[in-house]
Amino acid sequence: MILVNRRYRFSASHRLHVDALDEAANDEIFGKCNNPFGHGHNYELEVTVHGEIDPVTGRAVQLDRLDELVGRSVIDRYDHRYLNEELPEFAQTVPTTENLGKEIVRRLRAAWPSGFPHLERISIFETPRNIFLIGPTE
Amino acid sequence: MILVNRRYRFSASHRLHVDALDEAANDEIFGKCNNPFGHGHNYELEVTVHGEIDPVTGRAVQLDRLDELVGRSVIDRYDHRYLNEELPEFAQTVPTTENLGKEIVRRLRAAWPSGFPHLERISIFETPRNIFLIGPTE
Amino acid sequence: MILVNRRYRFSASHRLHVDALDEAANDEIFGKCNNPFGHGHNYELEVTVHGEIDPVTGRAVQLDRLDELVGRSVIDRYDHRYLNEELPEFAQTVPTTENLGKEIVRRLRAAWPSGFPHLERISIFETPRNIFLIGPTE
Amino acid sequence: MILVNRRYRFSASHRLHVDALDEAANDEIFGKCNNPFGHGHNYELEVTVHGEIDPVTGRAVQLDRLDELVGRSVIDRYDHRYLNEELPEFAQTVPTTENLGKEIVRRLRAAWPSGFPHLERISIFETPRNIFLIGPTE
Amino acid sequence: MILVNRRYRFSASHRLHVDALDEAANDEIFGKCNNPFGHGHNYELEVTVHGEIDPVTGRAVQLDRLDELVGRSVIDRYDHRYLNEELPEFAQTVPTTENLGKEIVRRLRAAWPSGFPHLERISIFETPRNIFLIGPTE
Amino acid sequence: MILVNRRYRFSASHRLHVDALDEAANDEIFGKCNNPFGHGHNYELEVTVHGEIDPVTGRAVQLDRLDELVGRSVIDRYDHRYLNEELPEFAQTVPTTENLGKEIVRRLRAAWPSGFPHLERISIFETPRNIFLIGPTE
Repeated sequence: MILVNRRYRFSASHRLHVDALDEAANDEIFGKCNNPFGHGHNYELEVTVHGEIDPVTGRAVQLDRLDELVGRSVIDRYDHRYLNEELPEFAQTVPTTENLGKEIVRRLRAAWPSGFPHLERISIFETPRNIFLIGPTE
Repeated sequence: MILVNRRYRFSASHRLHVDALDEAANDEIFGKCNNPFGHGHNYELEVTVHGEIDPVTGRAVQLDRLDELVGRSVIDRYDHRYLNEELPEFAQTVPTTENLGKEIVRRLRAAWPSGFPHLERISIFETPRNIFLIGPTE
Repeated sequence: MILVNRRYRFSASHRLHVDALDEAANDEIFGKCNNPFGHGHNYELEVTVHGEIDPVTGRAVQLDRLDELVGRSVIDRYDHRYLNEELPEFAQTVPTTENLGKEIVRRLRAAWPSGFPHLERISIFETPRNIFLIGPTE
Repeated sequence: MILVNRRYRFSASHRLHVDALDEAANDEIFGKCNNPFGHGHNYELEVTVHGEIDPVTGRAVQLDRLDELVGRSVIDRYDHRYLNEELPEFAQTVPTTENLGKEIVRRLRAAWPSGFPHLERISIFETPRNIFLIGPTE
Repeated sequence: MILVNRRYRFSASHRLHVDALDEAANDEIFGKCNNPFGHGHNYELEVTVHGEIDPVTGRAVQLDRLDELVGRSVIDRYDHRYLNEELPEFAQTVPTTENLGKEIVRRLRAAWPSGFPHLERISIFETPRNIFLIGPTE
Repeated sequence: MILVNRRYRFSASHRLHVDALDEAANDEIFGKCNNPFGHGHNYELEVTVHGEIDPVTGRAVQLDRLDELVGRSVIDRYDHRYLNEELPEFAQTVPTTENLGKEIVRRLRAAWPSGFPHLERISIFETPRNIFLIGPTE
């Protein structure tokens, strides 16, 4: 068994704000990330797939299929977007990188072809200092 | 003579759009960076100072003073901001990283203490692939 | 469930030497790290926390609280120190990065607030080539 | 218990091609990696060892012994080689990075001294975007 | 005036060997890079363009045009190739990274559209340790 | 003409303190770098050589000779040392990275073989944020 990691990039912006909380609470929890106009990041996404090496091709995952899958489900959807305003999934849900990661896992799982090697986890680098790992929960 | 480079980080968002151009032109020039809601980056700023090594202290620039200067003039102003909406300098000027860099140089020069080692140039990493170097023009 | 990683930096120096061993043994085990005057590193510390995403705030860990905790327990204590001479925990114990990591875990656990998301492990980059992962043992 | 990771580098070239498959299949599976003359990479190898901290020396693994072991078994063998033509293990087996990793694990296990800390896994960075993790299977 | 740097990647293999020199000389000059079957690298190419910020668009260079130009002239030509055997420019000339860089500059200059911002230099990272900077000579 | 950069690493420790200044001045200028026991860094040294591509060998500099030169003059001297106590050149001179760089340039120039490609400059990364460039002054 082998884990194959492949990295992708996208740039987006978000604002961390919860309507149900008052200003003081938003400020305390999110600090300058609560700025009303949002701010942005170069997100780096690592997709980790758990496969077996095919005895004929020597490959554990067909990378062009993975690229197509991640490109269509994630990169095309989030690259160069303002997450709060443009994505319905973040209309009611605050687009922290935690929630963004959860949503990316949900989208990958929904689009994942049967028979494709198992999706093990994703990692999102919000910045080089802040990295989130999320595994698909069933 | 010695060049001292010091790196800083800030996260912000911008939209690349010129009102004086029509939609087709904006789309052709800026592509997905023209998305109406903006998108964001983790900018990395490198400030390059040209100094002489002080024979007593062995230092070419007092780094805490440089930090205070860059922090106050640049990082505090741009970190976690939506450049188009929150900064008057980008009300009429499109906040490309080129223009952002030019403005950062202008602000550093305005705040630069006389007698402080010479500001040689700045470099902005918009992404790890796109890097802009700007020197102060007099 | 989600893992949140946050990275910190500190610079310190150490000497690898065990009094109970003779010179030949110290030299064989530690090589040039046994140099009597010590040497130093830019340590990079990654703290990994295992949490749940709060359904309201969308966060798994309050990062400013984590920063305060790591800052006070680890960074303030070790940054710009000579580990052998200035820290009582290394008076009798050789400050290899393994032992430094074990001590950092011990200090984090002692300071960890009850109810705070679970401390999963720490990673220390002694250099970009040498990386140590340590989980808290109970 | 502690995981110690140490990184090594080697440069090599390979061609991804399976004789048992026809041209169309080779092209579909391997794309431009099927180019008859091969192409190359700067591989980065991370060896992960699972050990206990020695109470006297404070070390979990003697790094110079690990270097000697990895150097002799892996780096000397693969550095600056064309994997398909020069290595008998890839005469019949396509040298994908998956198969290369499997072979590296096999070689490390064969050369691993008894009593040496446990080999946990290896990671190979084929490029900064493509990373493979393989654990030894028994 | 501003320098814009944009980074590209390609993987290729080469053998360092000069027919006009005998085996001993080839071995002395090129060491293991003289291995008859070649070896490979992940080359990273940085193209540096010297431009002026357009007062309307705020851009110094149209990046999609630069991408198209570099893609067609350089990346498509060298990516996943064995330089010695597949490229006529290296039939008589040893494909050291120095000569590869010189050839890349020659190709970029030949394809450079008139009126496009000035090509200042290129940098090639052969490995993270070996970096070559070449400016176009006229 | 071409610039060839090659990177080296060494780890050392230093204390920033000037005997001729009183405690308050030392504290104000050097802050926590003035800590009496010193602290350390993983220094990264980039040596930049300005050469011409040899028309026969295709090389601008013989890298194994450069490695031998830098290894003997710089790395062997400073790696795993406490600069203040072990190196006579820093007995009277404070080993800031500026002064360390100046001394490295002086040593390289003294050892530089006649006929070897021109030493253009060195860069020292004290940390990933602090980078010093020094050219040889004649």
